[in-house]
Amino acid sequence: MKRGTLYGVGLGPGAADLMTLRALDCLRKVDCIILPRKDEKSSSVSWNIAEESVGLIPGQERLFLSFPMSRDPKVTTRAWNVAVKEIRDRIFAGKSVAFISVGDPFIYSSFIYLYEHAQKSWPEIEIKVIPGVSSISAAPIAAGVPVADGRERIAIIPAVYNKDDLRTIIRMFDTIILMKASSVMPEIVEVIESEGLMDKSIYVASATMDKEQIVTDIRTIKGKRGMYFSMVVIAKKDHSGVLFGNGV
Amino acid sequence: MKRGTLYGVGLGPGAADLMTLRALDCLRKVDCIILPRKDEKSSSVSWNIAEESVGLIPGQERLFLSFPMSRDPKVTTRAWNVAVKEIRDRIFAGKSVAFISVGDPFIYSSFIYLYEHAQKSWPEIEIKVIPGVSSISAAPIAAGVPVADGRERIAIIPAVYNKDDLRTIIRMFDTIILMKASSVMPEIVEVIESEGLMDKSIYVASATMDKEQIVTDIRTIKGKRGMYFSMVVIAKKDHSGVLFGNGV
Repeated sequence: MKRGTLYGVGLGPGAADLMTLRALDCLRKVDCIILPRKDEKSSSVSWNIAEESVGLIPGQERLFLSFPMSRDPKVTTRAWNVAVKEIRDRIFAGKSVAFISVGDPFIYSSFIYLYEHAQKSWPEIEIKVIPGVSSISAAPIAAGVPVADGRERIAIIPAVYNKDDLRTIIRMFDTIILMKASSVMPEIVEVIESEGLMDKSIYVASATMDKEQIVTDIRTIKGKRGMYFSMVVIAKKDHSGVLFGNGV
Repeated sequence: MKRGTLYGVGLGPGAADLMTLRALDCLRKVDCIILPRKDEKSSSVSWNIAEESVGLIPGQERLFLSFPMSRDPKVTTRAWNVAVKEIRDRIFAGKSVAFISVGDPFIYSSFIYLYEHAQKSWPEIEIKVIPGVSSISAAPIAAGVPVADGRERIAIIPAVYNKDDLRTIIRMFDTIILMKASSVMPEIVEVIESEGLMDKSIYVASATMDKEQIVTDIRTIKGKRGMYFSMVVIAKKDHSGVLFGNGV
């Protein structure tokens, strides 16, 4: 029997109209959309982004799957085993299945685990990945901070580092984007302050979503934890790549 | 007189359907679209991406502006002064103007110079920036290489570094994306080889465009220069952030 295609679909950072035309087209055509959520009591953050534009498609299945946020491998393994079985059943029955991700499916997304599993375990199936606008683009725009001009270097680091490490990276790069900053915000602010970069740092949570939050003076949140989709953008802007006249 | 809005519009990496819904909507509504091109004999790479989806809008102005690729500040300054004057004239006459960028307007895009100039010189005007899918997302997807899982660090560096610097960064990060790799490809390959990462590196040019080129064995291009929109993705993938069973 012909296998279905597995799609990893990036939805963009949160605003419904920041989906791509390709993502929307895919989600309107597939047999099944997987709606990832934290647990059975939660809604799906990613489906909340897509729902308005995708609308109701007759005959399309929308399947909630739970991915608990846990550091216990037993808990995450159990959830992934369920998810993989549900997805496999449909694909091997010839159905196309889309797994939706906030942002981009290849940047800090759970889709990566599914992709790697599918490649290894189901080599005969076709996998298509549709890129999305990442919060790496969207958060700096929300904050009004250009990420990098022609000569600048960008470091993107998730909140799993020690302070010395963070200090080294901050010194080596022009723009530093600290992802998933929520739990380590106090430590991040401490390092930023000691590096003298308080005025070059902006906190952004839930960029482009309704509950977007931007803090340009991070002194005001010193000692506080951040929200779930939160990040810090440090842009030194010590130099500029092109010079042009100011005559206009 | 009411001023027009200046839009910076990210078009995504190259495929027409990787534009966002918001970008398309904006480009269909503005009074003027600026079509950047290299020189008067060239077409506009970014307009080639947008044209098909935007279509013909009655009364809309499409203005070609030349931005020569030069390291001579006299040449670039002259071009920017012309561009800034043309854009200013329209915005101060109450017209909305969109400046289109391949990828994202805040990541290695010429729009950044216009944005910074506009902020400084025309503080009274409204500027809206629409993020786009960056090649930072699109190229790894084209290459089939997930960028980073939950614990990995990403370094993004344009091709302006020395070899020792590059070596240090390669050792510190899990995924390294070398942008604008064309002219320094031989040096990049040399460093990658000496770091033992030939099998973890992929060359991607013009991701998602018709002329997309992917080289998974970079030994085959040793000593050669790259194309214009080219990059190298080095993904070490030494560890994986989640473990799950292989029973399915």
